[in-house]
Amino acid sequence: MPNPVVQPLFDLAREHGVGFYLGYAELATENGRTRRFNTAILVGPDGRIVGKYRKVHLPGHADHKPQAAFQHLEKKYFEVGNRGFRVWRFLDTITGMLICNDRRWPEAFRVLTLQGAEIVALGFNTPTENLHYPEPPALRVHHHLIMAQAMAFQNATWLVETAKCGFEDGFRMFGHSLIVAPTGEIAVKSATEEDEVIFFNADIDLAANLKRTMFDYAAHRRPEHYKLIVERIGAEVTPSSD
Amino acid sequence: MPNPVVQPLFDLAREHGVGFYLGYAELATENGRTRRFNTAILVGPDGRIVGKYRKVHLPGHADHKPQAAFQHLEKKYFEVGNRGFRVWRFLDTITGMLICNDRRWPEAFRVLTLQGAEIVALGFNTPTENLHYPEPPALRVHHHLIMAQAMAFQNATWLVETAKCGFEDGFRMFGHSLIVAPTGEIAVKSATEEDEVIFFNADIDLAANLKRTMFDYAAHRRPEHYKLIVERIGAEVTPSSD
Repeated sequence: MPNPVVQPLFDLAREHGVGFYLGYAELATENGRTRRFNTAILVGPDGRIVGKYRKVHLPGHADHKPQAAFQHLEKKYFEVGNRGFRVWRFLDTITGMLICNDRRWPEAFRVLTLQGAEIVALGFNTPTENLHYPEPPALRVHHHLIMAQAMAFQNATWLVETAKCGFEDGFRMFGHSLIVAPTGEIAVKSATEEDEVIFFNADIDLAANLKRTMFDYAAHRRPEHYKLIVERIGAEVTPSSD
Repeated sequence: MPNPVVQPLFDLAREHGVGFYLGYAELATENGRTRRFNTAILVGPDGRIVGKYRKVHLPGHADHKPQAAFQHLEKKYFEVGNRGFRVWRFLDTITGMLICNDRRWPEAFRVLTLQGAEIVALGFNTPTENLHYPEPPALRVHHHLIMAQAMAFQNATWLVETAKCGFEDGFRMFGHSLIVAPTGEIAVKSATEEDEVIFFNADIDLAANLKRTMFDYAAHRRPEHYKLIVERIGAEVTPSSD
């Protein structure tokens, strides 16, 4: 990056002094091995790449599902990201990146805000239909909205979620790009399923009150009781006897 | 427990075969030492105590704040719970307990659902006014609602949150008891600031689709990237250089 296809984007952004987040399918060679990641980069207003994130929470499946209306083969085509959840200095803020399904995992947001993330930037591409079982589209959007608001609030961070919308391979994407304030309020939201620009003049200091009171991690977090989060991967039914 | 004050509650519940959750200030003696905890118990329909939880996330402060309209001295009067986040077999379910401010900490829910929690029961007592800085009451209720819905959904669990409402020492409590489904939808909500009974016939299997697809922890969680959650308590601004 930038490759010839996106070079005009880099050039135009630099000309206007605009930083941006860009997601792409990354073909990498590491230690002589070809690897594929679902990747995003932050590009500064000077056109330089500030940071790179490789998606950790790959949804979907690795096997072909003949009964399904469409396939969700992220687990087949991509490897799990090997760079962790990180933040960078970007446009006078501390910004972290996530991708799509990461927005459903509170662990990801917490690791970013433990590193001081003031903005979390995330691109997503979510079909209107649930591949696995029938589900009302409005309920899927509801999940998207409640999670975005709760993640921003309980991490006292700005959250910028950018949707691909329209149709892909004949399947509709539900859109709903958002900028959410650390107060857990949607500051701005896309209104259509067409190309659209939304923007908001985000006051980074809006998180300050929360960070010094309710979400003062140093005062309130208790990692000695969180160990299972890293010691156990899947759920195991393990009731106590007292 | 049960002490003489709550013995009639235990008796009546047993008579009707009703299990319940009860919060109280616990005075305990452990290894000859007097200790105070903010505690909740689950009581089975046979009147026996099934489990005990001592609140981990103590909010507020330990020092008197002369400028504040009221004091929030949980950190003065209580010790941090020393029994962790646990689940119990209760009424043919796996049920975990939390208390009040725990509902703002996704770590707590995750530890419970990693142990198979199908229901999370939580009592809370939240003033309508923010002690620390002016905040619209409706925004405080908004935080309560988005977090409850997101926590239930992203943990694929039923969530029962029971408010104390009315006035305490002249200060108003915002109420809003809830039962939230694993779909992230509020199944039922209290409507007033008076004593009120709300109930819902919760289908535990409503979580099954989520648990085998989107929130199949074993398939999707990546604890190797979550280590900071237990290795770091407070936030430290630690941006990456690439």
